[in-house]
Amino acid sequence: MIQLAQVRIAVLGLGLMGGSFAAAMQGKCASIIGFDNRSGVSQAALDRGWIQSAAASPAEAVRSANLIILAAPVRAILSLLSTIGPHLPPDSLVLDLGSTKKEVTDALSRLPALVQVLGGHPMCGKETSGLDAADPTLFQNTVFNLVPLPRTSSEAIQLGCEVVAALGAKPLILQPEQHDQMVASVSHLPYLAACALVAAVADQSQNETLTWKVASSGFRDTSRLAASNVKMMLDILMTNREAVLQAVDGYRFQVDKLATLLRSGDEAALEKHLSQIQNTRKDWKP
Amino acid sequence: MIQLAQVRIAVLGLGLMGGSFAAAMQGKCASIIGFDNRSGVSQAALDRGWIQSAAASPAEAVRSANLIILAAPVRAILSLLSTIGPHLPPDSLVLDLGSTKKEVTDALSRLPALVQVLGGHPMCGKETSGLDAADPTLFQNTVFNLVPLPRTSSEAIQLGCEVVAALGAKPLILQPEQHDQMVASVSHLPYLAACALVAAVADQSQNETLTWKVASSGFRDTSRLAASNVKMMLDILMTNREAVLQAVDGYRFQVDKLATLLRSGDEAALEKHLSQIQNTRKDWKP
Repeated sequence: MIQLAQVRIAVLGLGLMGGSFAAAMQGKCASIIGFDNRSGVSQAALDRGWIQSAAASPAEAVRSANLIILAAPVRAILSLLSTIGPHLPPDSLVLDLGSTKKEVTDALSRLPALVQVLGGHPMCGKETSGLDAADPTLFQNTVFNLVPLPRTSSEAIQLGCEVVAALGAKPLILQPEQHDQMVASVSHLPYLAACALVAAVADQSQNETLTWKVASSGFRDTSRLAASNVKMMLDILMTNREAVLQAVDGYRFQVDKLATLLRSGDEAALEKHLSQIQNTRKDWKP
Repeated sequence: MIQLAQVRIAVLGLGLMGGSFAAAMQGKCASIIGFDNRSGVSQAALDRGWIQSAAASPAEAVRSANLIILAAPVRAILSLLSTIGPHLPPDSLVLDLGSTKKEVTDALSRLPALVQVLGGHPMCGKETSGLDAADPTLFQNTVFNLVPLPRTSSEAIQLGCEVVAALGAKPLILQPEQHDQMVASVSHLPYLAACALVAAVADQSQNETLTWKVASSGFRDTSRLAASNVKMMLDILMTNREAVLQAVDGYRFQVDKLATLLRSGDEAALEKHLSQIQNTRKDWKP
């Protein structure tokens, strides 16, 4: 297959992910053409030298590309896939950066047979979004999930791995359902846990306005994800509903277990449980 | 009352809080004598120049002090208070740094009448503990709750405020019950939410060992508090049980609300709720 240095890349969506991707790939591919439907964003990416040309439409962006990167919220990716389908060059590779994979890989499987397809999901992010938050180092030393389809060629997987390596990330090959269940637990559940915390403190602050003044670094970190882009998170939740609801059930079970132990006054049992959790968290290496 | 520059301070407990306190007060008071019941800790504090002398017992430490700082887990403070009571000099001020205030202020109220007493709680911390984690800048730009008792003189409150200012923190005067309800919500609840998250992901990882590999910065921050010192947290939970259980009830209500909205498929309602939460979190300034 074509060498990465010769690859013409099209990046559709120049927000946090697409902008960071384009920035990180500078000098590692033949060229990058960008598209963004928000006014002025493509021009800003051109000004920074993160793309070499700006396309007026998704169709124009993909027409001469070897590698097409879909960097948008999940349901925007689904919509882009139906738009670009007829315009994709034969043997080009479509790689998306969406946060859930079942619905996206279903849609990828319906693209013309001459096109290569690969699901992708870089495990990095920020609670800020948009090109201004983009950063060429965003992917460095992070895990980049790659989700091949039955029709994906080994050459396409190989090119995907080269792209991941060029970004400074580590590839992890997963199945779509496996991916979605895992991220429901380690990514979508933490978002909802953070949202519930902010809402609960907001409730409490109705009676005690000083509450927000006392909130400190513990609250700050535990609630950080609640500031995430709502459109992006809504797409994630709606395209991974069953797995997320299952993760929330497991979480509720654990919240209840802690409350029951505390209410019971069985301090030895509570200490043992908290110590196990502390060890698990300390043993985890990101 | 005595000027801070003339004050002889005794710090009982030279861990994260006591060590940071002693380090931050260097040059701002007459002298600091330290006590710690763990072997080698006082010597390490002496070596760093954070205390001028080391006491062999709590009684010895407080005997010539004007200001006594109790920097230990809450129930260790309760135990220290019964030990040092008979040895406290008249007109000295006892200020504790414990994380809950109802039980501590009850114990402070039972000290000899000639002693001044003031509850304290600096709103800063780390998931690490011990003198090695201590840092003279720990208190800078943080809120330092001061909880006076009916018997506390205005001079004692004034000295407390001067100490807080010397640490670089901002004083906030609160009542004991008010304090404990607020920190249950913004501090103890986040700890339990983080613990439940780690336990839920651990459950999920039983079936899927790759789960921990995919966990990233979102999980890292949301779960950070689960690595907190268990002895300290257990003291906090056991001395603030009712308020914490009430905060957990409010949290469960909000977790359920999110799950119900997601399950219902009423996307407009979910989006509105998540957007309100996002705005609340973004508007909060630590």
